[in-house]
Amino acid sequence: MKIRVINPTISKSFQDSMLANYNTYASADAEIDAVYLEHGPASIESYYDVAIAVPNILVEVIRAEQEGMDAVIIDCMFDPGLFAARERVNIPVIGAAQASMSLAATLGDRFSVIGILDRDRPPIYDLWRLYDLTARGASVRVIDIPVLSLNDDEEALIKAMITEGALAITEDQAHVLVFGCTGMGGLKEAVERGLTEMGYAGIPIIDPSAAALKQAESLVVLRLSHSKQTFPDPTVQMIVGYDKLQL
Amino acid sequence: MKIRVINPTISKSFQDSMLANYNTYASADAEIDAVYLEHGPASIESYYDVAIAVPNILVEVIRAEQEGMDAVIIDCMFDPGLFAARERVNIPVIGAAQASMSLAATLGDRFSVIGILDRDRPPIYDLWRLYDLTARGASVRVIDIPVLSLNDDEEALIKAMITEGALAITEDQAHVLVFGCTGMGGLKEAVERGLTEMGYAGIPIIDPSAAALKQAESLVVLRLSHSKQTFPDPTVQMIVGYDKLQL
Amino acid sequence: MKIRVINPTISKSFQDSMLANYNTYASADAEIDAVYLEHGPASIESYYDVAIAVPNILVEVIRAEQEGMDAVIIDCMFDPGLFAARERVNIPVIGAAQASMSLAATLGDRFSVIGILDRDRPPIYDLWRLYDLTARGASVRVIDIPVLSLNDDEEALIKAMITEGALAITEDQAHVLVFGCTGMGGLKEAVERGLTEMGYAGIPIIDPSAAALKQAESLVVLRLSHSKQTFPDPTVQMIVGYDKLQL
Amino acid sequence: MKIRVINPTISKSFQDSMLANYNTYASADAEIDAVYLEHGPASIESYYDVAIAVPNILVEVIRAEQEGMDAVIIDCMFDPGLFAARERVNIPVIGAAQASMSLAATLGDRFSVIGILDRDRPPIYDLWRLYDLTARGASVRVIDIPVLSLNDDEEALIKAMITEGALAITEDQAHVLVFGCTGMGGLKEAVERGLTEMGYAGIPIIDPSAAALKQAESLVVLRLSHSKQTFPDPTVQMIVGYDKLQL
Amino acid sequence: MKIRVINPTISKSFQDSMLANYNTYASADAEIDAVYLEHGPASIESYYDVAIAVPNILVEVIRAEQEGMDAVIIDCMFDPGLFAARERVNIPVIGAAQASMSLAATLGDRFSVIGILDRDRPPIYDLWRLYDLTARGASVRVIDIPVLSLNDDEEALIKAMITEGALAITEDQAHVLVFGCTGMGGLKEAVERGLTEMGYAGIPIIDPSAAALKQAESLVVLRLSHSKQTFPDPTVQMIVGYDKLQL
Amino acid sequence: MKIRVINPTISKSFQDSMLANYNTYASADAEIDAVYLEHGPASIESYYDVAIAVPNILVEVIRAEQEGMDAVIIDCMFDPGLFAARERVNIPVIGAAQASMSLAATLGDRFSVIGILDRDRPPIYDLWRLYDLTARGASVRVIDIPVLSLNDDEEALIKAMITEGALAITEDQAHVLVFGCTGMGGLKEAVERGLTEMGYAGIPIIDPSAAALKQAESLVVLRLSHSKQTFPDPTVQMIVGYDKLQL
Repeated sequence: MKIRVINPTISKSFQDSMLANYNTYASADAEIDAVYLEHGPASIESYYDVAIAVPNILVEVIRAEQEGMDAVIIDCMFDPGLFAARERVNIPVIGAAQASMSLAATLGDRFSVIGILDRDRPPIYDLWRLYDLTARGASVRVIDIPVLSLNDDEEALIKAMITEGALAITEDQAHVLVFGCTGMGGLKEAVERGLTEMGYAGIPIIDPSAAALKQAESLVVLRLSHSKQTFPDPTVQMIVGYDKLQL
Repeated sequence: MKIRVINPTISKSFQDSMLANYNTYASADAEIDAVYLEHGPASIESYYDVAIAVPNILVEVIRAEQEGMDAVIIDCMFDPGLFAARERVNIPVIGAAQASMSLAATLGDRFSVIGILDRDRPPIYDLWRLYDLTARGASVRVIDIPVLSLNDDEEALIKAMITEGALAITEDQAHVLVFGCTGMGGLKEAVERGLTEMGYAGIPIIDPSAAALKQAESLVVLRLSHSKQTFPDPTVQMIVGYDKLQL
Repeated sequence: MKIRVINPTISKSFQDSMLANYNTYASADAEIDAVYLEHGPASIESYYDVAIAVPNILVEVIRAEQEGMDAVIIDCMFDPGLFAARERVNIPVIGAAQASMSLAATLGDRFSVIGILDRDRPPIYDLWRLYDLTARGASVRVIDIPVLSLNDDEEALIKAMITEGALAITEDQAHVLVFGCTGMGGLKEAVERGLTEMGYAGIPIIDPSAAALKQAESLVVLRLSHSKQTFPDPTVQMIVGYDKLQL
Repeated sequence: MKIRVINPTISKSFQDSMLANYNTYASADAEIDAVYLEHGPASIESYYDVAIAVPNILVEVIRAEQEGMDAVIIDCMFDPGLFAARERVNIPVIGAAQASMSLAATLGDRFSVIGILDRDRPPIYDLWRLYDLTARGASVRVIDIPVLSLNDDEEALIKAMITEGALAITEDQAHVLVFGCTGMGGLKEAVERGLTEMGYAGIPIIDPSAAALKQAESLVVLRLSHSKQTFPDPTVQMIVGYDKLQL
Repeated sequence: MKIRVINPTISKSFQDSMLANYNTYASADAEIDAVYLEHGPASIESYYDVAIAVPNILVEVIRAEQEGMDAVIIDCMFDPGLFAARERVNIPVIGAAQASMSLAATLGDRFSVIGILDRDRPPIYDLWRLYDLTARGASVRVIDIPVLSLNDDEEALIKAMITEGALAITEDQAHVLVFGCTGMGGLKEAVERGLTEMGYAGIPIIDPSAAALKQAESLVVLRLSHSKQTFPDPTVQMIVGYDKLQL
Repeated sequence: MKIRVINPTISKSFQDSMLANYNTYASADAEIDAVYLEHGPASIESYYDVAIAVPNILVEVIRAEQEGMDAVIIDCMFDPGLFAARERVNIPVIGAAQASMSLAATLGDRFSVIGILDRDRPPIYDLWRLYDLTARGASVRVIDIPVLSLNDDEEALIKAMITEGALAITEDQAHVLVFGCTGMGGLKEAVERGLTEMGYAGIPIIDPSAAALKQAESLVVLRLSHSKQTFPDPTVQMIVGYDKLQL
């Protein structure tokens, strides 16, 4: 089984740690590779960034199908281009946000998202609306560190995530936690340890990339993909520009 | 007051009738102009088309603000790029879908959308979720004529819209109707007449372009725009490609 | 275009400032006049007050239609008699609460209402239920100054509104604010200035009378009114008393 | 225990059968009496009728409290004046719609209302919204016989109710039925018999007056009334007109 | 009318005070008796306890019907076995949680539950979901005293209930309170007095056993029971074990 | 990784085909075994059957943990005992209904369940409420063949499933299908083929056992389990009877 992960940014520097995190969780028979965008933003922190990233995400999704991938993952908590990509290909396209938050909803009463910046809240609330998860969302807590600085001080990052996770549990009655950025990948154990030390054991902590990977693998084995009634192939029509996206 | 209408496609042929329809409803002190996209799809019929249209919609929204427009309207029932555009500018950005369906919700118990194709349903249901309008939506009925053929036989078009409108009223208990495509602009009176002849008088029929225009004008006079808490300016960061969208 | 504003109380003293506020926002071609009730309460602060005001509101709505008005506005955040009035006339009847809160829902993630007294909360929550706006309502914050004392100390009033508005933003994650009483008309700029000084810029602040006026004008131009499927003419039947309301 | 039933119309002719129906269900220690309105409409079929009935309903509710009643019932499926009345008195005020539909929600999956006319639907949907019962409401089916003709042909009335009840069960998956007008009082057994003969046994059929009576009696014994946090006493203020309603 | 109350535990010691509390509220013509379980847990504090209690609850419900009871009450705020029991018998089966919380929803804007332990929250939230009461639930506040210690220090219990009730009112905007354990039966007046002294008068406080009793009596008089469409008789099939539950 | 499947009935005859179906989908490193109940019902078709099955399901869940299983699956679309089991053990406990319907919600607009009998509808609607999936559920269609007869005529079974699946698509706008009974395991390909022949290609069809297995495997790899905040260990207390369930 071959699965491609799309880093929906131009930031090549994320690739190695991202791929390593995926391989931590991959099935024995799953071969994971990862690409990043030729054109697009350095990180995804707004709807604006999403808009700029999506055409090249689509290029990569189409290429993944053409190259025989069995599934493709868009590695970002905004799920950029998820529905458009699903229209364009038949192989499963997985969004990290949908996969992780849907899983969270099955593991406990309500979940919180540990996000990056205040500005993450509205887009996450929008996804809750779009996926009908509002009733399962407890809160979005944010660590207030920009995406591109996440790797600058891992200790500070972990500490901030533990602090906000604990607040989500005590103030917002969160029973499950979801990382709000795939850039937090690989920190599950550290955050879990920190929360356990504070007395909050038994709280599922979901790394969205990992959740996306397992959903991708599951769909391949189950011979399932997204519904083509919901995501029918795009109408063939003239497009000006976007040479790589001509139908 | 200067208002720019963005036709989010490359189809120049729509411009004249679109602008004429807007001018039918414009206030005396509103000056309307209209642009279409340099790059993008010929019509918007899928999330895929939206993805391809959005970068150039953003180019036009930014240009509208730079050229001193007081408000800008995205003339399409998918509201393509609405939230991204609102992040990028301070002038009001109006989506035809949000404006028309929010208005519909105030005029009666539940509204139906008279759409184009079966494939329109999921995106409209998604907008209902995103705008919290699901409880006010009665149904999406479709006429089954492609967007680019809407102008081929106006009589057939009007007849199909009346037929589906009547079914929405009788089968789905719709009390208000909203046109599901801005390409249906200008047909309100004809559809209203047809429904009245069938015994369905007193049903508000909303032309989304017209509703969007009035919301745009209203916001300008009210000195209101979208919330910058919800739609904060995008983070300044490196973007590769999209020269016209550099921050 | 002729629009009548109904002050749904016997308090004549509000008329001048109310009309002045409306004229601030009126279109060039809109002629606004205002009436108050012959019988009814001095202010609307309860369902009880609403009950007593409604028959005379209906008298005024009917008269407005008979006198050739194009639309009528009920200038109160309880929307007293809105649905009954819509049954009785064909011209658009606009409620300040519905118009302002529906508009608020389109401008950002969630809105708060800056109300008058604790007792305002249940009726506003009821309107959120009735209009299916609960998911868009963040909170009702109250200034704790009775309606009839609103004009006693404008500085204190503005200060209280700024204080509560700031709390709505910081504590309740409100992204849009709506004044909870039409008696707060004319204070938008002052409150906006105060919040901006506190660091909360870019928050739309909605004066409900102004929002109602723009919806009224819009409906007239759009040749729309409320649905007569939802609000059919009342059955003609015997009424004892209420001579002015005989059908 | 003394309970007063308010017929919220001027139609004295309903009194005897209404009171007889109440007495069928009354507890041994409950003394029921009934009044009708001095001023108001002949029947309640619209929001307009409600508006005209409410002031005199309030007169009667206040009088009921002054005369030492333990509870008061507003005998109508529009629950006219329910919230205003609750503000004005401390004794429990019961609405037939709220009592019957809340009870229905506890007895099975979803309930349908067997209403009178098409025009009943929007007000019932509004009550579902107001009482948060939408998720429990299956449908409103209507018999299409005006309220004031209900007594003209009882056999036809029962037959129509059985027909619509059966359609609610088969078409709308209703598992419980609620009569949509208190004028249908006393027909529970006949409708139940008819449905059982058609094969639909075991369907609870709720006579709203009876449900209201039992809720009234229950609240008296439980020493409960409505919340004065939700329904605080009206503010004392000047009222012009409505001499009987001066505070 | 004969009504049986099932204490869904093996704890015989609760019987006398439980029955005394029921008799405080019983109608003159209602004969109440009470049973406890032969096998099961000492108290119900988890889904696990519910699972162990339910088979013997069913034994008692079946026996109640066989012995000619007119209705049966399951005296516990988890409503253990409610739906299974309703499938198995035709007489009304009342759950204390459903009866009390449905009543609470009719008396004010939103209600809070004064529960026992933190662990009560998820099951109560689940019941809110199951009964579609989430929109009416303000919060669950807990006193943090185990069920089997409730009787150890009544003064401390009452004080804790008043403290949490006051917090529900001030912090969570609760307008109605419901006891979260039937073991709190008989304390309504004391809690009400305490809250009134703190300035929170006019708050309905619901003793769930009392609410369940009145619903049971009401259904008997109304000749109503649960819907056999929702709760059809179980299929007759082989069961191994559970000799008393063979069909 | 060792996963145990619990057939929550006494019907040993299902074991072989059930296990074979699971092994079709199992990962290379997953070792699946299956048990059935010593005491309980022959099939699960009601809440009553659930009640009788649950204590022995708990016995098996506890045994699975004691025997070193990594996860346990309750193989039934009623999810019998799911929450109780989660309280009692730390290893992941997966319900086939929750796993399959949560997955369905991620693959398209709305899903339908192809159930067995009319009586399945209320319990499935209840699960939709409990899991907050109502907004994603299109309908429950039923084939009207008892569980214990499912294997009698496989051709008829498949035909009925195709017929009801097609009706779900055309009448209820279902975009994803979920089998309503784990006894339908292994028929995904046949039903898919039938629907494709009818023109309904691209519809994901979910075998609930398979979905549950993949969720179980995923949680094991992700080192996740259910939240112990939502499902805390049961209180240790006296239990009479149920020797195998003593804490």
